[in-house]
Amino acid sequence: MTKSSAAVRTPAVSEPNAREIKPGVVAFKRARILEEASALFYEKGYESATLEMLADRLSATKPFLYTYFKGKSAILSAICEAGVQESLAALDRIEEIERLPIDQLKASLREVAEIIVARHEYLVIYQREMMNLDRADAQRILRLRHEFDLRIGNLIENCVRDRSISVANAATMSVWMGGLLTWIIHCYRPGSKRSAEAVVDQAVEACLRLVGLA
Amino acid sequence: MTKSSAAVRTPAVSEPNAREIKPGVVAFKRARILEEASALFYEKGYESATLEMLADRLSATKPFLYTYFKGKSAILSAICEAGVQESLAALDRIEEIERLPIDQLKASLREVAEIIVARHEYLVIYQREMMNLDRADAQRILRLRHEFDLRIGNLIENCVRDRSISVANAATMSVWMGGLLTWIIHCYRPGSKRSAEAVVDQAVEACLRLVGLA
Repeated sequence: MTKSSAAVRTPAVSEPNAREIKPGVVAFKRARILEEASALFYEKGYESATLEMLADRLSATKPFLYTYFKGKSAILSAICEAGVQESLAALDRIEEIERLPIDQLKASLREVAEIIVARHEYLVIYQREMMNLDRADAQRILRLRHEFDLRIGNLIENCVRDRSISVANAATMSVWMGGLLTWIIHCYRPGSKRSAEAVVDQAVEACLRLVGLA
Repeated sequence: MTKSSAAVRTPAVSEPNAREIKPGVVAFKRARILEEASALFYEKGYESATLEMLADRLSATKPFLYTYFKGKSAILSAICEAGVQESLAALDRIEEIERLPIDQLKASLREVAEIIVARHEYLVIYQREMMNLDRADAQRILRLRHEFDLRIGNLIENCVRDRSISVANAATMSVWMGGLLTWIIHCYRPGSKRSAEAVVDQAVEACLRLVGLA
């Protein structure tokens, strides 16, 4: 989103050529479609929602939607995949920035908790509509979630190795950390009594308690 | 279920009168309907499932179903409510049996974890089909879940008071324990690689780690 809106704003300043602008515009339009689709699926449920309704909300046409997505099911899949994809990207980024395993683990848990808060709607839709995903999409997303667990398991393992924490089974703990992080969607929704920051703090603390920290 | 099957088996032994048998038979039939409805909703999704399909699976008729439930939505509500109702009943039972707060907490977590394993299908349906519940039913179930959190929070509070554990905020911890227990439905399904016992043990251990035990 940041990248794409930057690309949209750029022309006035530096006149980039069309080849530079296009990927940003495509990403921006895809993101807008997903945002509206998510609001629509969240309100009406996937099965009751139609591409006509979605096109209406975007003041666009069905053919416009088909330029960006194969169909309703591809939109659902992109929504369900976003949270875990962004989380994996965050883990990559943090691995570059933080040197100590314990700092990597802490920063990763915090960033993922923040992604889950920001993607509340997307994740509720994933939990609700999982069975409406195409089989191949559902399996691909499960593989990504499994990869996420493995990566968190490795971070825990590295902390155990340098003795900053002590747990018997890093892989198991990573699964329960995933559970705590996912539970955020039941503790927080935009406009809820608890603030997003408080819920993120609590979730990170709970994860660290699992491995004897905090 | 235990009560009702006992009632069904009793006649040969002690010839109870009709008034004794009837509540057991009603409970048994309701339970059978919920069992089949759960399997049906789990496979097909709530919206695609029909009362005709359900009656077929039970070799019964639609009027038979209406004797026990107002309609499809009442069946969904009973399925979604079962897990938390059974959990609250377990907490009542354990309060009678165990004296020490810490033993009450441990026994409660274990029994609830076992209920969640046993009610895997019901709880998956609750997560998926929440938005298909009648508003009043959805709110009633939320209140029950809230009551469950409060009761676990009280158990933690009692442990803090007698110094068997030390946590800053018992209420908050009870919410995250709820998250860990609910995560069981993603870690275990009948026939999965991990055994039910192993998952229950892990979940209880994870909950106790949250409050600095295990």
